[in-house]
Amino acid sequence: MSSATGLSAPAVERAALTSAIEAARLRIEQVTPSVDGGALPARGVIGTPIVVEADIFSDGHDQLAARLIWRGPGTLEEQSAPFTSMGNDRWRAVFIPSRTGRHRFNVEAWLDEWGSYRADLRKKLAAGPVPTVDIEEGRTRLVGTAARAGTRARDAVTFVQRVELAAEADATELLLSDEAAQFMARFAPRVFVTHLPADLIIDVERLAAGFASWYELFPRSQSPDPGQHGTFDDVIARLPALREMGFDVLYLPPIHPIGRAFRKGPNNSLEPGPNDPGSPYAIGSEEGGHTALHPQLGDMDAFRRLLAAAAGQGMEVALDFAIQCSRDHPWLTTHPEWFSWRADGSIRYAENPPKKYQDIVNVDFYADLSKPGLWLALRDVVLYWIDAGVRIFRVDNPHTKPLPFWRWLIADVRGRHPDVVFLSEAFTRPAMMYRLAKVGFTQSYTYFIWRNSKRELTDYFTELTAQAPKDFFRPHLFVNTPDINPFFLQTSGRPGFLIRAALAATLSGLWGLYSGFELCESAPLPGREEYLDSEKYQLRQRDWQAPGNIIAEISQLNRIRRENPALHSHLSLRFYNAFNEQVISYGKFTPGLDNFLLILVSLDPRNVQETQFEVPLWEFGLADTGALAVEELMHGAQFRWYGKLQHWRFVPGELPFAIFRIRPWQSGG
Amino acid sequence: MSSATGLSAPAVERAALTSAIEAARLRIEQVTPSVDGGALPARGVIGTPIVVEADIFSDGHDQLAARLIWRGPGTLEEQSAPFTSMGNDRWRAVFIPSRTGRHRFNVEAWLDEWGSYRADLRKKLAAGPVPTVDIEEGRTRLVGTAARAGTRARDAVTFVQRVELAAEADATELLLSDEAAQFMARFAPRVFVTHLPADLIIDVERLAAGFASWYELFPRSQSPDPGQHGTFDDVIARLPALREMGFDVLYLPPIHPIGRAFRKGPNNSLEPGPNDPGSPYAIGSEEGGHTALHPQLGDMDAFRRLLAAAAGQGMEVALDFAIQCSRDHPWLTTHPEWFSWRADGSIRYAENPPKKYQDIVNVDFYADLSKPGLWLALRDVVLYWIDAGVRIFRVDNPHTKPLPFWRWLIADVRGRHPDVVFLSEAFTRPAMMYRLAKVGFTQSYTYFIWRNSKRELTDYFTELTAQAPKDFFRPHLFVNTPDINPFFLQTSGRPGFLIRAALAATLSGLWGLYSGFELCESAPLPGREEYLDSEKYQLRQRDWQAPGNIIAEISQLNRIRRENPALHSHLSLRFYNAFNEQVISYGKFTPGLDNFLLILVSLDPRNVQETQFEVPLWEFGLADTGALAVEELMHGAQFRWYGKLQHWRFVPGELPFAIFRIRPWQSGG
Repeated sequence: MSSATGLSAPAVERAALTSAIEAARLRIEQVTPSVDGGALPARGVIGTPIVVEADIFSDGHDQLAARLIWRGPGTLEEQSAPFTSMGNDRWRAVFIPSRTGRHRFNVEAWLDEWGSYRADLRKKLAAGPVPTVDIEEGRTRLVGTAARAGTRARDAVTFVQRVELAAEADATELLLSDEAAQFMARFAPRVFVTHLPADLIIDVERLAAGFASWYELFPRSQSPDPGQHGTFDDVIARLPALREMGFDVLYLPPIHPIGRAFRKGPNNSLEPGPNDPGSPYAIGSEEGGHTALHPQLGDMDAFRRLLAAAAGQGMEVALDFAIQCSRDHPWLTTHPEWFSWRADGSIRYAENPPKKYQDIVNVDFYADLSKPGLWLALRDVVLYWIDAGVRIFRVDNPHTKPLPFWRWLIADVRGRHPDVVFLSEAFTRPAMMYRLAKVGFTQSYTYFIWRNSKRELTDYFTELTAQAPKDFFRPHLFVNTPDINPFFLQTSGRPGFLIRAALAATLSGLWGLYSGFELCESAPLPGREEYLDSEKYQLRQRDWQAPGNIIAEISQLNRIRRENPALHSHLSLRFYNAFNEQVISYGKFTPGLDNFLLILVSLDPRNVQETQFEVPLWEFGLADTGALAVEELMHGAQFRWYGKLQHWRFVPGELPFAIFRIRPWQSGG
Repeated sequence: MSSATGLSAPAVERAALTSAIEAARLRIEQVTPSVDGGALPARGVIGTPIVVEADIFSDGHDQLAARLIWRGPGTLEEQSAPFTSMGNDRWRAVFIPSRTGRHRFNVEAWLDEWGSYRADLRKKLAAGPVPTVDIEEGRTRLVGTAARAGTRARDAVTFVQRVELAAEADATELLLSDEAAQFMARFAPRVFVTHLPADLIIDVERLAAGFASWYELFPRSQSPDPGQHGTFDDVIARLPALREMGFDVLYLPPIHPIGRAFRKGPNNSLEPGPNDPGSPYAIGSEEGGHTALHPQLGDMDAFRRLLAAAAGQGMEVALDFAIQCSRDHPWLTTHPEWFSWRADGSIRYAENPPKKYQDIVNVDFYADLSKPGLWLALRDVVLYWIDAGVRIFRVDNPHTKPLPFWRWLIADVRGRHPDVVFLSEAFTRPAMMYRLAKVGFTQSYTYFIWRNSKRELTDYFTELTAQAPKDFFRPHLFVNTPDINPFFLQTSGRPGFLIRAALAATLSGLWGLYSGFELCESAPLPGREEYLDSEKYQLRQRDWQAPGNIIAEISQLNRIRRENPALHSHLSLRFYNAFNEQVISYGKFTPGLDNFLLILVSLDPRNVQETQFEVPLWEFGLADTGALAVEELMHGAQFRWYGKLQHWRFVPGELPFAIFRIRPWQSGG
């Protein structure tokens, strides 16, 4: 019987078999970092070690070896780093990217014939005299390798000759030597070499992508004169105080002209007074749309002054990219085809159930697929502000806009400006939140704002730092927003603000607050998780020195963040035992453990809490009786801990948390 | 500026954008079952529901809908089943395969425009009078859909006319009706239809792949005459007793000629007596190799008699596929190129550190890649026994043979005989164990044999039944093997044997024991997890009625297994609270909960244990005060439980476990 290929059945069989024989004998699996099996990039930050892990295994008992091969953007030059075995078939390699941009890596594994031989020889030597056949086998391999290497191995000639001529006992010693191992690693052909079928990719971004402290304010509230609409110049006057508090990103809600139609009054009312400023999210009026400035804030020159002044303080300005339009937005008349009109000539207003935004209408991304003008116009809005000098965009409600839109827009923008950062404000379900990160958002808002108990925090941050999201999702921990006045803070008083600030500032490289938090503001709309007299609908001027503020503590937290690289990322987080359900304990550390912080936070804003807790001596390889040198970083105390069990006491009215920098202590050291 | 494609830069930009716009707006992710992202088949069993789950989501607040599309082997006819939402973007659909072979499925999701409209209309109606524009919008859509459907919708003509002509209040009611929903689901075009990029695959196997009770014995020990070498006919005489105990697979260690060179004596000694039979794993002598029978067992006719007799009892015979050779195996002379010879003319003997097998040499799978004769010869060994009537192979140490070999061999064999079952005896690290399942092994030995504490069992079976392995790895729970005399059983006495039998028989659809277990044999080689006077090296005849045996209990366990579909798989396992660390509690159930077993096992073979435990009333949607009808299946008692907390007492000398069949109880019901 012959097949369609013209081969006889046995020949077909042999062909299938030969292909099976040549298929990879070694397996490389479960490689991290990797997003959607390699289809999408993982995320890295310049200068921060990237730890690559993989399961590498094969049949039988031979030893394996592997190396990481990687290259940076715009170069074909490959670099490599060795994998080391962590046991149970898991291997690890590390590289540090020194440039931003797309990096590629692969894993190369092979059967380590010499390593296997050497381990076997060592065992035999330990058990008694080594049989001649084993010595001769090694000698033949090494000498044969030298012969094939020819002149490439000329600096090893003497060593090879010694192996060749040695008596059996000496030969055993030479064959077991590191010199032989190095020689064979260099010159012996690698066998059963296996790679990943495709390179994996990592997008390496600038530091601010992973480490930044954000401060959000409404420019219109910044005038020192009561009742006066604030300006960009008023914001400039506030910069030194913000910098003194340690913030490096100043985030502004929309600064564009505000619509008049259906304008909201104080507390989201539908009947505004004549002087009510309206919600800045109702973008667009006869004065312009997304590329215009609200006239009362100042003109483009004033805005550029603000950017320059911020840069002068070492700060950046982040703008809000909120795609919605007021009913007065110029696009409604210049581009009616970008909206979805109803039979009666109206447009549906925006809703984010149960919230209603009568002053806002949404564009229709799929209104006319044949004319992508809307998508280009929105992209051009972003490019406009980039031209003006902005490099960070906080994106409002991205989960209500199509994923393909974001994937295209972010790729387009970052293709031109790789240093642009996009923060996703997607308070939605996890699948969408994570998907937005995968399609390009640099950072994301999180559920942190609603996670208060030890169990909730432990579960959520384990998910973010030890499960799949760790490779693509960067959590930005806001302690409050103009939209969210957390229930916890409504009743916690000042200690609760300290608790939430300490958690946010230490759990992630990215944290932020909305102004008023530092003054412990929390008056709610009764029964709602919203602020009374919300700044979204009215000016709110504040006494920045009001008693009871926590400016000193926030300043110190940000100082500690800057000085301790362990706090520059959410990764490298590990929870430890504190024997009190009201106290959470965790470590943050750099890969080499040269910077190690142990953080304890009482989650109880009302009562004194004491706890025994475990000091993670084992992380340093110390016994349970070991000693650590400790610095308490909020007050600067220095002392030592002896042994694994220690004790601390948290007084809400003083400081409900503690941050310890620890390192092994040697007497005299 | 023009690009290489001849398009102007803006045209290129628009092309990229159009492609983005057309890309999938809806996402379908995290689909299960799925192995390695769909590259390899998941596993199913004929007649057993296959539950498909997926994250399905989109931007915005519109409703989605989805269906599962699947087809069986050898047909292009597609069947479909609706997905239902489980909340949090997770969806579920179920289908029941009625044929063995490769099934394919895909997920189709779309934006449910009418569903979204209907939900919106319902909310508006609840809030007050519905605006005319909303009613007209629905009416226009429905009537327009009818017009486009034309004669296809002729049986709905009357309904459509009613909608068209109804006054507003009536129209609202009609638009909200199920009839309207069904009409639109049938005729309205689906929008934003999305599929998985490639079908996922499931290999559906026969029942024995997932549900079987195995009994392992050495035929040579089965003679009733002391000191006499047993035969296949002696095994035939044992079959009724095995069937009475409820076993349906009889597994025989190798039945081939045994080598004489380096033959092992009792207790693995290197100096055998002249009448010592040697290890059956030292396969091959002058009487033949892997396709020959050990003469003392009987000839091919006798073996066929055994197969027929087993079939007559409703049992199957499983053979051992052990690739190793004795030094007397014919292949060493007929095919010396299949072995790896050393410089002194010797062959390395087999080792599985720290175990040494001086009587066994291994073939070299990569000795000569240009001549795949060895691989074909091994495949032909399997085909030879299939021709003889064997359909189940237990494969010895597959992890020491190349993965590509297994992938090719199993695909080749199952391509010819889809009903063949391969059991992997890979007591190795998890990555390799799981990989062997992925490349084709039907079932696998597990770590169960070393998991004794509540924590160990809970962790391990959560991994096997709720994490990735659930889709491809079928655990076969052996309570002992000729190689493993578990430490737990060495000191537990009879209660320990009952404990392990109960766990194995209820935790997985597949369990097995090696003969002697039912007699509570456990005499060890001192300090080792091995049997004294191991049957691998000598005959061992037993008194099958020895006092203290647990034959009655095993028979009852197997009867319970047969009668309760919940026990036909390891899946659908859930652990419940028992407030005693020595008592483990878990439920096994069919998807519709029509068969629900609650199993409690004391893990303490020495002391009486009592426990309060939670009855999972919530699984039936019952309140904590609900009532259940209960059958205790080991003794047959029937009673009722009222309320969530119940109590049980376990006496090691009586029965250290309990199996309850539970169902909701209604008074009078």
